[in-house]
Amino acid sequence: MADDRSIRPLSADDVAAWDREADVVIAGYGIAGVTAAIEAARAGADVLVLERTSGWGGAAALAGGFIYLGGGTPLQQALGFEDSPANMKAFMMAALGPGADEAKITDYCDGSVEHFNWLVDNGVPFKESFYDQPGWETPFDDGLMYSGGENSAPYNTIATPAPRGHVPQMENKRTGQKGGGYMLMKPLADTAEKLGVRAEYDMRVQRLIIDGDRVVGIVAKQYGRNLTIRARTGVVLATGSFAYNKQMIESFAPRLIDRPGAAIEEHDGSAIRMAQALGADLAHMDATEVAFFGEPQLMARGILVNARGQRYVNEDTYPGRIGQETLLRNDNQAYLVIDEDAYETGCAADSSTPFFRFRPKWVAETVEELEADMNLPAGTLTSTVAVYNRHAANGEDPVLGKKAQWCKPIGSPIAALDLRNCTAGFTLGGLRTSVNSEVLHVSGEPIPGLFAAGRCTAGVCAGGYASGTSLGDGSFYGRRAGLSAAKGLSAAEG
Amino acid sequence: MADDRSIRPLSADDVAAWDREADVVIAGYGIAGVTAAIEAARAGADVLVLERTSGWGGAAALAGGFIYLGGGTPLQQALGFEDSPANMKAFMMAALGPGADEAKITDYCDGSVEHFNWLVDNGVPFKESFYDQPGWETPFDDGLMYSGGENSAPYNTIATPAPRGHVPQMENKRTGQKGGGYMLMKPLADTAEKLGVRAEYDMRVQRLIIDGDRVVGIVAKQYGRNLTIRARTGVVLATGSFAYNKQMIESFAPRLIDRPGAAIEEHDGSAIRMAQALGADLAHMDATEVAFFGEPQLMARGILVNARGQRYVNEDTYPGRIGQETLLRNDNQAYLVIDEDAYETGCAADSSTPFFRFRPKWVAETVEELEADMNLPAGTLTSTVAVYNRHAANGEDPVLGKKAQWCKPIGSPIAALDLRNCTAGFTLGGLRTSVNSEVLHVSGEPIPGLFAAGRCTAGVCAGGYASGTSLGDGSFYGRRAGLSAAKGLSAAEG
Repeated sequence: MADDRSIRPLSADDVAAWDREADVVIAGYGIAGVTAAIEAARAGADVLVLERTSGWGGAAALAGGFIYLGGGTPLQQALGFEDSPANMKAFMMAALGPGADEAKITDYCDGSVEHFNWLVDNGVPFKESFYDQPGWETPFDDGLMYSGGENSAPYNTIATPAPRGHVPQMENKRTGQKGGGYMLMKPLADTAEKLGVRAEYDMRVQRLIIDGDRVVGIVAKQYGRNLTIRARTGVVLATGSFAYNKQMIESFAPRLIDRPGAAIEEHDGSAIRMAQALGADLAHMDATEVAFFGEPQLMARGILVNARGQRYVNEDTYPGRIGQETLLRNDNQAYLVIDEDAYETGCAADSSTPFFRFRPKWVAETVEELEADMNLPAGTLTSTVAVYNRHAANGEDPVLGKKAQWCKPIGSPIAALDLRNCTAGFTLGGLRTSVNSEVLHVSGEPIPGLFAAGRCTAGVCAGGYASGTSLGDGSFYGRRAGLSAAKGLSAAEG
Repeated sequence: MADDRSIRPLSADDVAAWDREADVVIAGYGIAGVTAAIEAARAGADVLVLERTSGWGGAAALAGGFIYLGGGTPLQQALGFEDSPANMKAFMMAALGPGADEAKITDYCDGSVEHFNWLVDNGVPFKESFYDQPGWETPFDDGLMYSGGENSAPYNTIATPAPRGHVPQMENKRTGQKGGGYMLMKPLADTAEKLGVRAEYDMRVQRLIIDGDRVVGIVAKQYGRNLTIRARTGVVLATGSFAYNKQMIESFAPRLIDRPGAAIEEHDGSAIRMAQALGADLAHMDATEVAFFGEPQLMARGILVNARGQRYVNEDTYPGRIGQETLLRNDNQAYLVIDEDAYETGCAADSSTPFFRFRPKWVAETVEELEADMNLPAGTLTSTVAVYNRHAANGEDPVLGKKAQWCKPIGSPIAALDLRNCTAGFTLGGLRTSVNSEVLHVSGEPIPGLFAAGRCTAGVCAGGYASGTSLGDGSFYGRRAGLSAAKGLSAAEG
């Protein structure tokens, strides 16, 4: 083998002997990898998963566990929420960014109920309870929650609000054990094992192996040694995002420089690079999830202002939307202005056990004093609060559409929390794939033998985000990748 | 030849005979192509330019003609402006976006004076006069103008302001003949011709021809027939942006869907696609120039507010920055609020002959009335104007830093111009290249024999923009591409 650090494809002609073989070879044992493995195995394929770390899980097992599902899942129905694929699609097309892949979103919405049932059939537990408070995640073991701002402006006027954040039932969330992501991955990994899926760990994929235009294997390094692994019917790339690839972040998503979040260091974009080396196309490389470390129960009760003392987002919406608005459109400058009563009420209402809670940085008797203390230009914060209070007195927010339940004039004493530079995020862009999880060449045609899913691909998000869309499209299109990769099976065996 | 619609590379083994041959083959006869041609020819190469339309020019010949140059050019010096490469770099790194290519910007600033002299030596005329008014372009034949907001907040506090928009002297601008872009292209095309550069028109490049990893030619279609063109030392891609490639716009720069501007329909991204098919890397695919059809002389004298009635940009800055702030961060919603006096003064001061001028859509005696007429939430515009006026009375704008000369309280009658959805733009991202204009493979290594410059590459801009950076890096790195492509000359001849 020529240069073992290269990500250029290796010709099968240069492979003297295969170190491993399987029908379907999957790189990465996170959510996309495990779902691909299950479906490929059920389709009769001999499946080998190559995982870089020493165990299954990936970023998924560490995640909160939201899976974005809807269209009328049994859980939604049992909890009294009406939804339909069309309604779900209307929200997703509006919220997930201009240029969103309509074919993929339509397909995803149409298949969402079936996908929920599939997860349940494969052992993923969902508790029949709804968490109705603002928050990033439920602090308990509830199975359903709003996770994308569906019930807030502006989306509550575009589609009928329905919660779609489906969370596997957790155990001992407060101790950090068995969170939603773990409870998603564990039954799936168990299922895969029962189906005879083989997994090898400490296997770091390096480059694809090709025979003409077709991908027929992959090189992986294990304990310092390069192994050639033959994939008789297909290779599935499922190694996650590029949040930890410094050069790619600078080139494609520079607002995340020095602020990767909710990703793992293995997310180095290597699968994207290996496929690019074959001419694979990309999409939405600038799209990013943005987490924001403001507490939803406090934000909904106050007003968020930027460095000019202006409100810029309805504070009762999905905190990930607040994060995007803050980082991408307001230079990562945010202050939460809140009166003492609302602060105390919000802290009391917060059922989570915050790792740390931002304390007010400034406290004053009047808005004028606060404005001066914060060094905001005279009149800016004062007039923002005056306009807000004028309408809040009527339970209205005509400026940003915060819901009536949160509209209450801000009184005295008044405080501000410093939420500048309180964001982190992961990347949403990647390989352009078909609804069958085929990796598309820049010509528009699929690359034979190559499939991908999860955050190394561009999924349903084109800039916007809702919690659960990553585990959602990762699992949905992971399954498709497994099925597609196994498809050449009879031909390969025959 | 297999599939003549494919953009996949063709193997030289499959070329039965070469229809054309040259040392250096250049695709595209715009600014990057012509500068590459000149330098390659001067280096002794036999040069063939393939142009898709029926003449040289590209988007450059239709452009205003700004070339972003500085660091102390003779023109800057003659007009009394101090600048240095370090000062120029400080501005460019701050203004052109996070993730800007520092190596390229450093190189570009260091070489800027030499590049100006080179243009002059090649016949590009610059009149020794400075246009000191706000505007997109000088309406006259002046040679120098601010073109990136260097003298406005926030950049006037980051680097010493120096105008860097160098404009070739125009003839008959008012009749649309011989604008700045034409006066840039004409002498360069003449120079190329004198140097023996051959050009063939109606040649649409299709796919690259490779010998192993090396690019050795290109397929071009002329009058329905595919021709194979051998490049003995190098191929230079210079076919412009992807502003008119619908699928690429949706995938990479979706805010420009349905609003391409300052580009030509030939800008279909084909060079980017052909190189991607070889594993070429990309950068900053989401970056876009955004033109805004507000008149600078009016904007500086009024205040721009978004759909919430809030100011969001200092109105005296580079209009391209206003365009980006409006489209990318304020949902393309903008109103210009201005009093009658300022409107009349601004119209009188405007030395250009506007194709059409926006008339006020709403006129009122008081801000309250205007706010109601515009259907803005009560108190929003009123308080914005009150805060602005409070500080403008002292010649200050602590909110956004508009310069004192433009700060004047807004009186009565008061009007608003509707500038919603008044943007258009072109793309700035593309192939990732080295400072030697080598096209970089995703491995980080150059692709042998392949060079690129102009808007099919990611140049000095990573999201921000200044007028003149496109013709600037297009010409600067076009030259480099020509030199690099000619470099293998003696080897090829020997």
